[in-house]
Amino acid sequence: MDPLESLDFTKGDGLVTAIAQDDETDEILMVAFMNEAAFRATVETGEVVYWSRSRGKLWHKGEESGNTQQVKAIFSDCDGDVILLRVEQRGGAACHTGRRSCFFNKLEGDRWDDVGVQVFDPKQVYGK
Amino acid sequence: MDPLESLDFTKGDGLVTAIAQDDETDEILMVAFMNEAAFRATVETGEVVYWSRSRGKLWHKGEESGNTQQVKAIFSDCDGDVILLRVEQRGGAACHTGRRSCFFNKLEGDRWDDVGVQVFDPKQVYGK
Repeated sequence: MDPLESLDFTKGDGLVTAIAQDDETDEILMVAFMNEAAFRATVETGEVVYWSRSRGKLWHKGEESGNTQQVKAIFSDCDGDVILLRVEQRGGAACHTGRRSCFFNKLEGDRWDDVGVQVFDPKQVYGK
Repeated sequence: MDPLESLDFTKGDGLVTAIAQDDETDEILMVAFMNEAAFRATVETGEVVYWSRSRGKLWHKGEESGNTQQVKAIFSDCDGDVILLRVEQRGGAACHTGRRSCFFNKLEGDRWDDVGVQVFDPKQVYGK
């Protein structure tokens, strides 16, 4: 059976939400989207491919930075509209800001504190 | 400063995605949505309140099952459109199916295996 048949792309206009979780540390690294082609490419290649809504095309994570995500396991949720990817994060950073995780803003009282771990300098990696 | 000002509700038509992660085990329990009122209610009460898209109203998680989520920490991501909630899951189960986590379908080859941990019987809890 095609595993895509159990996923529900209708609620997200052709997309499902995809969460990347570090397979070693269990840290949540980032959240993005997948269409059917992105899901297939991820399963077939063993490296995570998302759908970039801003660029309107498949986004092989790490294609620019080298920080690819190696698939360790894939889960879907009870109603099939969210994918959980357990990954090995190459380069140690998932966020385009160079931080390890995108979730670096922690609510403390009424403000967000930056508690992120800076791994690389985005200016050097992306040249901008 | 109002922490809502750093969140971006525009991309999700007034909603942000919210991930609940078990604060003890780091397991991802579920994914749902919040509007501004849900976020405020969550911060103010210390118990997670989502926005139910299907019912079109605030959803105090656990209001029926008793399986509320106590907020341990709140994070937001780099572009402010996803919230990460570190929670203590009362009753030990987040999923409406009675399983501990909603992410109980694991991809094995070309099929999804149910690897969920059943905590309660939904027929008994929801009476349906």
